[in-house]
Amino acid sequence: MSTKPKVILDPAQRRIGEIFADADLRRLHAMADVIWGRDDVMPEDQFLAAAPDATAIICGRWRYPQALPLATNLKAILEVGGGFPPTIDYEECYRRKIRVLSCAPAFGPQVAEMALGMAIAAGREIVVGDSAMRSGREKWLHAGNETTFTLYGKTVGMIGYGGLARALRPLLEPFGCRVLVYDPWLGQGYLRSQGVQPVGLDELLSTCRVIFVLAVPSSENRAMLSREKLELIRPDAVLALISRAHVVDFDALTDLVLAGRFRAAIDVFPVEPLPADHPIRTAPNVVLSAHRAGSVREAMTLIGEMVVDDVECVLRGLPPQRMLSAQPELAGRYVAISARRPDSR
Amino acid sequence: MSTKPKVILDPAQRRIGEIFADADLRRLHAMADVIWGRDDVMPEDQFLAAAPDATAIICGRWRYPQALPLATNLKAILEVGGGFPPTIDYEECYRRKIRVLSCAPAFGPQVAEMALGMAIAAGREIVVGDSAMRSGREKWLHAGNETTFTLYGKTVGMIGYGGLARALRPLLEPFGCRVLVYDPWLGQGYLRSQGVQPVGLDELLSTCRVIFVLAVPSSENRAMLSREKLELIRPDAVLALISRAHVVDFDALTDLVLAGRFRAAIDVFPVEPLPADHPIRTAPNVVLSAHRAGSVREAMTLIGEMVVDDVECVLRGLPPQRMLSAQPELAGRYVAISARRPDSR
Amino acid sequence: MSTKPKVILDPAQRRIGEIFADADLRRLHAMADVIWGRDDVMPEDQFLAAAPDATAIICGRWRYPQALPLATNLKAILEVGGGFPPTIDYEECYRRKIRVLSCAPAFGPQVAEMALGMAIAAGREIVVGDSAMRSGREKWLHAGNETTFTLYGKTVGMIGYGGLARALRPLLEPFGCRVLVYDPWLGQGYLRSQGVQPVGLDELLSTCRVIFVLAVPSSENRAMLSREKLELIRPDAVLALISRAHVVDFDALTDLVLAGRFRAAIDVFPVEPLPADHPIRTAPNVVLSAHRAGSVREAMTLIGEMVVDDVECVLRGLPPQRMLSAQPELAGRYVAISARRPDSR
Amino acid sequence: MSTKPKVILDPAQRRIGEIFADADLRRLHAMADVIWGRDDVMPEDQFLAAAPDATAIICGRWRYPQALPLATNLKAILEVGGGFPPTIDYEECYRRKIRVLSCAPAFGPQVAEMALGMAIAAGREIVVGDSAMRSGREKWLHAGNETTFTLYGKTVGMIGYGGLARALRPLLEPFGCRVLVYDPWLGQGYLRSQGVQPVGLDELLSTCRVIFVLAVPSSENRAMLSREKLELIRPDAVLALISRAHVVDFDALTDLVLAGRFRAAIDVFPVEPLPADHPIRTAPNVVLSAHRAGSVREAMTLIGEMVVDDVECVLRGLPPQRMLSAQPELAGRYVAISARRPDSR
Repeated sequence: MSTKPKVILDPAQRRIGEIFADADLRRLHAMADVIWGRDDVMPEDQFLAAAPDATAIICGRWRYPQALPLATNLKAILEVGGGFPPTIDYEECYRRKIRVLSCAPAFGPQVAEMALGMAIAAGREIVVGDSAMRSGREKWLHAGNETTFTLYGKTVGMIGYGGLARALRPLLEPFGCRVLVYDPWLGQGYLRSQGVQPVGLDELLSTCRVIFVLAVPSSENRAMLSREKLELIRPDAVLALISRAHVVDFDALTDLVLAGRFRAAIDVFPVEPLPADHPIRTAPNVVLSAHRAGSVREAMTLIGEMVVDDVECVLRGLPPQRMLSAQPELAGRYVAISARRPDSR
Repeated sequence: MSTKPKVILDPAQRRIGEIFADADLRRLHAMADVIWGRDDVMPEDQFLAAAPDATAIICGRWRYPQALPLATNLKAILEVGGGFPPTIDYEECYRRKIRVLSCAPAFGPQVAEMALGMAIAAGREIVVGDSAMRSGREKWLHAGNETTFTLYGKTVGMIGYGGLARALRPLLEPFGCRVLVYDPWLGQGYLRSQGVQPVGLDELLSTCRVIFVLAVPSSENRAMLSREKLELIRPDAVLALISRAHVVDFDALTDLVLAGRFRAAIDVFPVEPLPADHPIRTAPNVVLSAHRAGSVREAMTLIGEMVVDDVECVLRGLPPQRMLSAQPELAGRYVAISARRPDSR
Repeated sequence: MSTKPKVILDPAQRRIGEIFADADLRRLHAMADVIWGRDDVMPEDQFLAAAPDATAIICGRWRYPQALPLATNLKAILEVGGGFPPTIDYEECYRRKIRVLSCAPAFGPQVAEMALGMAIAAGREIVVGDSAMRSGREKWLHAGNETTFTLYGKTVGMIGYGGLARALRPLLEPFGCRVLVYDPWLGQGYLRSQGVQPVGLDELLSTCRVIFVLAVPSSENRAMLSREKLELIRPDAVLALISRAHVVDFDALTDLVLAGRFRAAIDVFPVEPLPADHPIRTAPNVVLSAHRAGSVREAMTLIGEMVVDDVECVLRGLPPQRMLSAQPELAGRYVAISARRPDSR
Repeated sequence: MSTKPKVILDPAQRRIGEIFADADLRRLHAMADVIWGRDDVMPEDQFLAAAPDATAIICGRWRYPQALPLATNLKAILEVGGGFPPTIDYEECYRRKIRVLSCAPAFGPQVAEMALGMAIAAGREIVVGDSAMRSGREKWLHAGNETTFTLYGKTVGMIGYGGLARALRPLLEPFGCRVLVYDPWLGQGYLRSQGVQPVGLDELLSTCRVIFVLAVPSSENRAMLSREKLELIRPDAVLALISRAHVVDFDALTDLVLAGRFRAAIDVFPVEPLPADHPIRTAPNVVLSAHRAGSVREAMTLIGEMVVDDVECVLRGLPPQRMLSAQPELAGRYVAISARRPDSR
């Protein structure tokens, strides 16, 4: 009988072949007895039966909260959905020193690339310009650059300075931008130590040429970008809405961009799929994307790589290093966040 | 009477207010007597009369070649169009140690940004995705990412490693790309010392996921990217045509992208404006732009800044440092290049 | 009566004026009632009396373990000595979600600079060369460079990849070194994600031209660099002993450098001060320093800056961001470490 | 009979095996018929006989100026000593479009490393500290750091912003220094475009914590750092004299450091070897080196690599890219420089 530690693998909304490269899956099997390890959802009775022996559980959702008290050997829950499941009893996990780990950092680079790409597309009018070429209305050379601008040397704002912002920073570095940050969850000293300037939300909105909305949605920031706040944005600015529509008064945003008050690049919407007749679909100065920043196929195996790296640490009694560890101070807020995130970003 | 050196300012196709920020124009006037200094073309007789006293000539085109022998005090010709004028007698300039300086480097950063933006737009399907949102055919999340890819870790090719390539390099740095270069005008040792890998054209075309065409057009590289060469490109690759259509067999390119052989991002065309019925306007997997990479308005004053910085050097008897100096070895080729470039890139 | 939270400030072996810049001390007083706040040690009775109301305790040592059960409002212990105190009951802290924070990261940059400086001094023979100039035995130009080498392009090893190593990495970046790492507390996947190559200790020792010993001492790594291991080092290599003498068989090291087997740069010793007659003081191919890498005066106020930044986070119910947070997995090992560190690195 | 171009190789004060790696020498032989190619000096008659057929001449010194008119096929002179030979008729070379190329850039990296190493050694008192350890007078920990300082965040001055300064810049980057530059041969606009701040000499001397003297010596800068100028230096500053003693009033410098006015790190001296009784040998706050910054053996083959890369360009009719090309504006000054440089930096 195997003496290897036991690891439950029940990815739920993800598929194993999607998030694990072959080599990483082999590594996992070499270091542990993998229980279940199938794409269909693990039945409750089997899960509860396996829980007592499990050292780690890799899961898409946390469907069976009643398993936690049974899982007396558990050292880590590694979620592969992209956010901390609200169904986990975090207090019990802290008390029992069980790590709760999220694969959210795996999405940083690809979302950052999309944020940069959409911002350049808006500033340089790449989408509008292509459309004009196709309808024969294009303007050439200088005539086609009446309202374009470059990122070089611009003042850029980041609303939220978490994983997405940290992945975006290096992409902006070569443009020599000054970066202003509004993040009420981070201290000013920390932000300054990272080479960005902490500012209030009003100053950020009224100052920046490009504004990236990167905040994790929470109970505290719903519609934080109200109509009044959105009206602070400069007419020549681009608002890039990347993290969640939750933080914006989307009706106000729609009104303002339809009125041509500023430009925008929008990847997330209050309802997805967006109704076919939503007026923002006709806004001429907006780059629209159907929540596609964080689901590039080739990038999904980064999840599996991070999971296996951290399972290895957990089995060796070491702190995990690649996934995001749930922090005691933010437990209550994670619940609020996760409740807003049924999907897979 | 002024004892300041005399500098002719005759920007021809450019306007003074477009290429000079006020502060730079004031610097120029402080260091020299500016002759002409108007947007309309300087008449021949006045030009010939002013030439003998001129220490430097800032010009859009070199309209009056007969002025060169008269300009016995001349130390530099600073062109503000973007390419070395074919009408200059370079041999005489070398013999008399007259610097011929081009403002081409002023265009590097903005063209590089557009190249990056168009490449990301192609790889992440930003243009196609926006269009789908507007027609209600969009696919959400993973379903919308069936054929997208990111730049991270990709092998990228650069055809031509001049000023544009050097401006693009830092923008690609944070993506961790391996960079292959084909440039027959540069030694392999130099390329390796720059951290890129020199390769043959065939290897570059058949290997790279993103191919940037950045070569200065010359008598040697017309239609270098023939049909046969273009057919080497991988089906999942993006060809970003940034420098000049001159280097491509554009009919072949049109056929291939219409047949869906690979993706492309195209800013330059064999005839501009492009005929309204040119079939490439309908290619579905191509990002099209009306030669707009190098004429962002706010970036044009970089020309004036470079010009005044180098006029200062020339007047102080120092080597110029910011503009591109015509090289003796390339004189004949410059002629060929400039003859192909009536416009203002 | 003040409603501000109460923070005990009892820096013990540190002085307040040494570790706090005026501005940081003012920030601390603005956000909390500071209890004690004096350089002399807080008496036990006063400490125990203040503990129940304290939200945070800033301390040099943890002298009164009996205070922990009394401190029912405590959210964080912030130590300013440089290592996790062994006297803290970490299990209770985890259970009660009390953060234990170390100022160790404040020492990273200055120690990294010293490590780089000592490595260059060894490779370029700066110390030996200066000594020769003073005794008139110097050799000039090429004759003085018979055995010198540069860092450019060399393979460099790091034993331990914690805070010191992460501070050293950027300083080595411009030299284009390949970095090998041996760190049994870190996963290979994590190390590769950081751009370094995980290797075994023997491979590191026998391969690298410069070897930086940066490991935190622990119960597991005492004399890990045994005589047998040290004998693997290349004759042309430099061993830079930066973190602790604890990890080296110092007698073997002394024998080997006295025999000229390799070069070394040594900042830490098994007994400090080192006996006046210790033979390593006469080794000709060694750069010696009296444990001076981590106590530059101007750098000490970084401790106070980090402490106040994190007190601010703690008082606002946010995760601390600048100091090092004790990890549940490493608690037992911290004890071992701290027991070896009576001093102030 | 060979139809390959002919290249004279007469390295004079250098040896072929010292400056050419085997692979580079093989490359050279593959592309050209190598004439002479020996370490001993090529006799005049043979040199004059070979000159008419030579396409390129690789030489340590330019011993036979009378060869220039005979060398009617000559395209380039590539010097391997480290400075532009004063015996070359530069005017004739410009007129005939013969490139004169210097290997000086090959010395940039190793000199920059030594400059950084000596500056850290001075700021962190590495040399003094080692000496104290050997005589039993060392002070431990904080007591040994009373007057030390780090480079992080300091204002650093560069006198001269040529190849050495450009090689030093990236090494200083991770320290976050503000860089002030005094260089009368460069325009302020150019310096600003490089991210450094142009200032006057007095401001630089009185402001900077570390001052690197990196200027190429010329007829214009002899003893530019006069006693009066040196007295502007801050008492807590380090003067790193790296390029040439020529630019300093060395007697004044000696007096000032003997008086403890500031610290210094000195690699170059007015007479080399320095007299055994020169008082600077006893200065306690100075790091002394016997002109060893630019002659590390392993780095010498960079000369050969650059030479062969540029011979390849020359033979292909392309501009050379790796060596430093003599500039028409500076010809007269090169003479002055070279006359001061009998040695091999």
